[in-house]
Amino acid sequence: MDLDALRIDVDRLVGRLDALGEIGAVHGPNGERGCARLALTDADRDGRDLVVGWMHDLGLDVHVDAIGNVVGVRAGDDPTLAPVMTGSHIDTVRTGGRFDGNLGVLGGLEVVETLERHGVRTRRPIAVAFFTDEEGARFQPDMLGSLVYVGGMSLEEALDVRAADDGARLGDELARIGYAGPVPCPAASAPHAFVELHIEQGPVLEDEGVTIGVVTGVQGISWTELTITGQSAHAGTTPMRLRRDPGYVAAEITAGVRAIARQMAGTQVATVGRLEYVPNLVNVVPSRVTMTVDLRNTDEHLLQQAEHRFASLCERLAADEGVTIERRTLARFEPVEFDARMIDRVEATAQRLGHSTMRMPSGAGHDAQMLARVCPTSMIFVPSANGLSHNIAEHTDTADLQAGADVLLQVLLALANEG
Amino acid sequence: MDLDALRIDVDRLVGRLDALGEIGAVHGPNGERGCARLALTDADRDGRDLVVGWMHDLGLDVHVDAIGNVVGVRAGDDPTLAPVMTGSHIDTVRTGGRFDGNLGVLGGLEVVETLERHGVRTRRPIAVAFFTDEEGARFQPDMLGSLVYVGGMSLEEALDVRAADDGARLGDELARIGYAGPVPCPAASAPHAFVELHIEQGPVLEDEGVTIGVVTGVQGISWTELTITGQSAHAGTTPMRLRRDPGYVAAEITAGVRAIARQMAGTQVATVGRLEYVPNLVNVVPSRVTMTVDLRNTDEHLLQQAEHRFASLCERLAADEGVTIERRTLARFEPVEFDARMIDRVEATAQRLGHSTMRMPSGAGHDAQMLARVCPTSMIFVPSANGLSHNIAEHTDTADLQAGADVLLQVLLALANEG
Repeated sequence: MDLDALRIDVDRLVGRLDALGEIGAVHGPNGERGCARLALTDADRDGRDLVVGWMHDLGLDVHVDAIGNVVGVRAGDDPTLAPVMTGSHIDTVRTGGRFDGNLGVLGGLEVVETLERHGVRTRRPIAVAFFTDEEGARFQPDMLGSLVYVGGMSLEEALDVRAADDGARLGDELARIGYAGPVPCPAASAPHAFVELHIEQGPVLEDEGVTIGVVTGVQGISWTELTITGQSAHAGTTPMRLRRDPGYVAAEITAGVRAIARQMAGTQVATVGRLEYVPNLVNVVPSRVTMTVDLRNTDEHLLQQAEHRFASLCERLAADEGVTIERRTLARFEPVEFDARMIDRVEATAQRLGHSTMRMPSGAGHDAQMLARVCPTSMIFVPSANGLSHNIAEHTDTADLQAGADVLLQVLLALANEG
Repeated sequence: MDLDALRIDVDRLVGRLDALGEIGAVHGPNGERGCARLALTDADRDGRDLVVGWMHDLGLDVHVDAIGNVVGVRAGDDPTLAPVMTGSHIDTVRTGGRFDGNLGVLGGLEVVETLERHGVRTRRPIAVAFFTDEEGARFQPDMLGSLVYVGGMSLEEALDVRAADDGARLGDELARIGYAGPVPCPAASAPHAFVELHIEQGPVLEDEGVTIGVVTGVQGISWTELTITGQSAHAGTTPMRLRRDPGYVAAEITAGVRAIARQMAGTQVATVGRLEYVPNLVNVVPSRVTMTVDLRNTDEHLLQQAEHRFASLCERLAADEGVTIERRTLARFEPVEFDARMIDRVEATAQRLGHSTMRMPSGAGHDAQMLARVCPTSMIFVPSANGLSHNIAEHTDTADLQAGADVLLQVLLALANEG
């Protein structure tokens, strides 16, 4: 048969996306269908069970490793060759959508089902993986499962991470939901190559009217938690000049990192996503504020520059207001450049299928950036409606899902048949 | 006997302050002994029960009204004359001290006990009151009990107020703790006069080395709750120029109201005491931020000016960032000027007792400002160590407690013996 003409069945793909999206479903006031499936919660377990069931239905050999990563393998004709791997994650943030991560995993299963239905065999095995705690919404750092998979963090350290919400230990939660598997982690050997299909999670493809984003690399990420301690005092009786207000300092930092990102321009972004006041009462100057700062850039040198400006800002504000600022690194990943030949292959394949393409860096972190440490890697992006992600209104048109999964199919097929 | 020579027993007063302070006690790492007795909680009930027990021990006739205000009355010789009233509140903020409010109530009981022990009778009755929910930490507005007492808010509206913490209805909580009393509220008749002993809650008396603050009035208070709604989005993939970030707007408002207060100088203060992010995750631009702004000034015209500048700031920021800002008034009280003859009387009495004095406005709101609507009113301030209040390190030296309660005794005695 003409392998180049092989296409996925988008209705079957959408059916799986909808079914998985029902687990932890969040319904918005305007018909939005989002998802709250935080890592290692009961909802995550239910989602894992569903996907593992599908893997078994497709005849995959399912492996669960010690950090809960799940890999389903379809055998190839040559058992001596390393598998080609695809995949992503199925955990979500608290106000997440149905596509982020899930598309990469279910797109991989759809590729396998297409090959099965058409009786197509490959030289190399094809592996479809989902990695534990990619979002980092509950356990930091993010991309934890794939990081441990490639040996970037020790298993012991990862199992001891505590949840940001309820303080639970990652290893305990993993055992509780039944996903502390027997396969050693980090993995004993590297895949032949890794390709991840993912939604863009930003507005660029839609703005440019382009269907396929050819991902050249991933921005570096720097996450810092600040604990700012000042002096709680009465809001009515404490003159402004005598205040040591951690809320004011947090505000200046929030505005200050925005200004740093604006001034640096380029790919630099800066976000304050978490901020908590203590005691949080209308007529009390807070005693303590905890907040996070998320800095990202595709250039390591520029990211370090942003970090230095942020650190100086904190020092100056602490001195001016008479507060103390404790800084803790939650995550730090250098920018990643994907393999040039893998990038070319994604681009050429998409163009051969008749899709418009553009090369772009990823603003978000992805499991692919971890796999890039051990094998040639790239990613395929499809558009996000209105640029929304980490939002229950997250959406990608069916035609774009078809396009992305077809590119994934053709790239995997070619990789799986090379020597 | 020489009534001018009569003095209170400060050990007895401190004993009562300590005993009441044990209810809802919060112990700090450096030996601080604070208090968390939020209005209409179980702790508030226990505190009320203790104070009502003391009132009965002192032979007072105890009245509980429909909003939970408690008034203990010591009879006078002439039953046709209106009572002289003193008192304050016994609820605290979550990180409160043992003196704020409590001193005014227990100072009043100490005056009664001093008169009892010395067999001193007065022409007019002397009433010692504590008013419900002065702090406003749980139910807004603050000074709710005394506001209803003087007819400034309807009983029905007050009973329907919902708690900021758990959403409980004030009327239900009042009934639950057994303090929905039978006495009608607002009060049927006004006291002859009202005097409130209170800690300064600020640093001025200590800075100036003065023992007694003669309070000339109370700053106007304007409390606003803002709900800022923007667009939740992925922290890594959303370019800065496309963000509609309510956290950034909250930060600019926090810094902006500080700037307004600094520029206006004088008695103007501005505080952001409560601030909450939704969804509050490190890698998500928040969708919504709720915050409060507390503005105070002794001059109504200047307070309105601050409010207008604050409102303009909100409008400008909402337009610039593309967010919506919903504003809700939680409390609004005009500045209060106390009765000139009552102020003179407090000052003259303190000076006759040999204490240094200074006239000052109150930065905090007090029940006295509500009573000032219906009868001649003033207040007596004593120093707060390091200016701290709404803080578990709140402290007033024993000598200052003695001075303040002695002034209260002599002022009440003179008022209670006039025709």
